[in-house]
Parts: sequence; structure tokens; C-alpha cells
Amino acid sequence: MPKTPKILSTKTLAQTRLFHIEAMQLQFSNGVEVEYERLKSSSEGGAVLVVPMLDDDTFLLIREYSAGVHRYELTLPKGRIEAGEDPLYAANRELMEETGYGARHLQHLTAFTLAPGYLGHTTQVVLAQELYEERLQGDEPEELEVVPWRLSELNTLLACEDCTEARSIAALFMTREKLLHER
Amino acid sequence: MPKTPKILSTKTLAQTRLFHIEAMQLQFSNGVEVEYERLKSSSEGGAVLVVPMLDDDTFLLIREYSAGVHRYELTLPKGRIEAGEDPLYAANRELMEETGYGARHLQHLTAFTLAPGYLGHTTQVVLAQELYEERLQGDEPEELEVVPWRLSELNTLLACEDCTEARSIAALFMTREKLLHER
Repeated sequence: MPKTPKILSTKTLAQTRLFHIEAMQLQFSNGVEVEYERLKSSSEGGAVLVVPMLDDDTFLLIREYSAGVHRYELTLPKGRIEAGEDPLYAANRELMEETGYGARHLQHLTAFTLAPGYLGHTTQVVLAQELYEERLQGDEPEELEVVPWRLSELNTLLACEDCTEARSIAALFMTREKLLHER
Repeated sequence: MPKTPKILSTKTLAQTRLFHIEAMQLQFSNGVEVEYERLKSSSEGGAVLVVPMLDDDTFLLIREYSAGVHRYELTLPKGRIEAGEDPLYAANRELMEETGYGARHLQHLTAFTLAPGYLGHTTQVVLAQELYEERLQGDEPEELEVVPWRLSELNTLLACEDCTEARSIAALFMTREKLLHER
């Protein structure tokens, strides 16, 4: 593997409430110098994505307005990890806010990047089992619809036009692998 | 499903070579008004991600420096769809630039979003089969390492610390499903 490029300089190009755009001047190990732009993650702890299992086969999705694409999307519950917050704690908090369930068993599955070439964002994936009813008030502008689906019917979900988020899809496949393997 | 929120106004907060940050004032169907920030996609055509199959089981990954996370990452070949370019043509072009192979058979599999809550980005996923050697010169600052892997060993790939990109992982699972189903 080549040596990681040397960062010659960095400069903030723009910073808003949610986004921080940085320019980096890089020198690759072959001597080539290039300027890259990247989006730094807005929260240091990153984000958390929860796979909430109601039973061995049924998981919960939420249908939420997604401003990036200006339509409703079916995804797994997710949210930002607050500064200093434990990822498993954040997962349970988001789960209670978005679905009205808490989990007695939470387990870290993996960490995803989205587009590592230009986004610094990392998402921690947490499997949530042994659910019980408990709601926390979140900051959503409207109540979210909770949609149960089955791992055994994952392929019908993938055919839905409003289920497109790669990290939710990857997390569901990985959960199915894990649970099948454990049986 | 609730009615899609009404966009009351939009405003560009920042625009750089690669990124365009927009603020949107929205009114939800329950009357609640909220300001959102989102990143508009920098290219209208979006991006393309290629699953290149060397045979029924072997696919090709590339190891590329990823500025967003400042490390080398193992992902599927990918790139931007140029203005007016057909997604399948773009897939074959990126494949030739990044791996040194062209494909005689190209098939659109699905479209992914990354984080639809605040990113407008869409990635077209293309399955590439019947490969033959052909290299096109790309704009990469250094030669990319091409890494063959097997669908039958997908789980060992997921255990690699440098394979984290959710859209590559989701695309590989979907390809495995499709090819298993066709056998």
C-alpha cells in the first residue's frame, strides 16, 4: 500500500451550521501535488444507525421527510451522536425518539463511511434487540411513521422506490448474515 | 404518507468547486416551519458505482486514497457521471480508467442515496460483466491498486478495516443476491 499523502496545508472554504468545507493541498508519495476539497463531519462523534429487531425476523423502519432529496424515505432510525455521548447510548436515545421503543440489548456491528473520497462522515451501526415500549421526545417537526418489515422479505423492500439509503441497506444485509449465522 | 413539505424559500449559503450548500425554509403539512440545510449534488447526473465481475464469483475492488477520511480505502470503482453522459457509458469509462478493464455487458442494478436527510447525492449502481482488458487514462494522481475478491468470501472483506463504504457493501450484497438467484 502506498504511503498516505502528506497534507501540505488545509483551509476552511465555508462553514455553516451543519457543514464545514475544507480545501487540502496534498502531496502523494510519487511527488504529485493536488488540491482536494472535502466535507468535514459536522459532529465529532459522527452518526449512529440503529437496526431495531422486534423479533428474530422483524425490524423497524421509519418513514421520514429527507430534505437532501426532498421526498419521504424509508430508512433505519438514525441520528447524530452528541458530544461525549456513548454510541450505544445515542442509538437507544434515537430509537426511543423515532420509534417509541427502547432496547435492553445493544451491540455495535460496524462503522460505515458514505463517500470517503470527499466526506469525512462516519456512521456507527448498532443492532438493538429485546425491545420494550418507551418514547422520548425528539426534535422532529412531525411524528414519524414506523414501518415493520421482515429480514426474510428484504428483497421486496429493495424494490421500493423510497428505500434507497445505502447505509440502511448494507446494515440490513449484515444483520441478516449475522442472525442467520447465529441460528 | 404525509404530503411533502412546501419549500417556502431557498438560499445558497456557500458554493465551492465541489460543493453547494443550500438553506431551505420548509413548511410541513402540520403547519410547522423549519429551516434545513442540505448539500446539493455537485454534478446533475450524479455518480456511478461499478460492480465489475471477472467471473461468476470474482469481483474487482480498487484501493484509493480517500481524502474525506485521509486514508486508503478499498471500494468498488466509481466516479462522476459527466453532463449528458449515459450512466452505463460512464460506468464503463470509470472501469477502464480505474481497473484497466472494459465490459461487454453493463446492467443498471439500482440507485442509492447516501444520507438523504441532508445530501442530494445519488449513485447509480451498474453491474459489469464479460470484462476485457482496456485501459483509459483517468485523472488519478497515482496508479490505483486493483484488488480481486470473491463474493463467496464477502464476510472476510467486511472484516477489513479499510472496507467501510456503505454503498460498495450494499452493492456487493445486492449483486450476490442477484447472481445466486440467477443460477
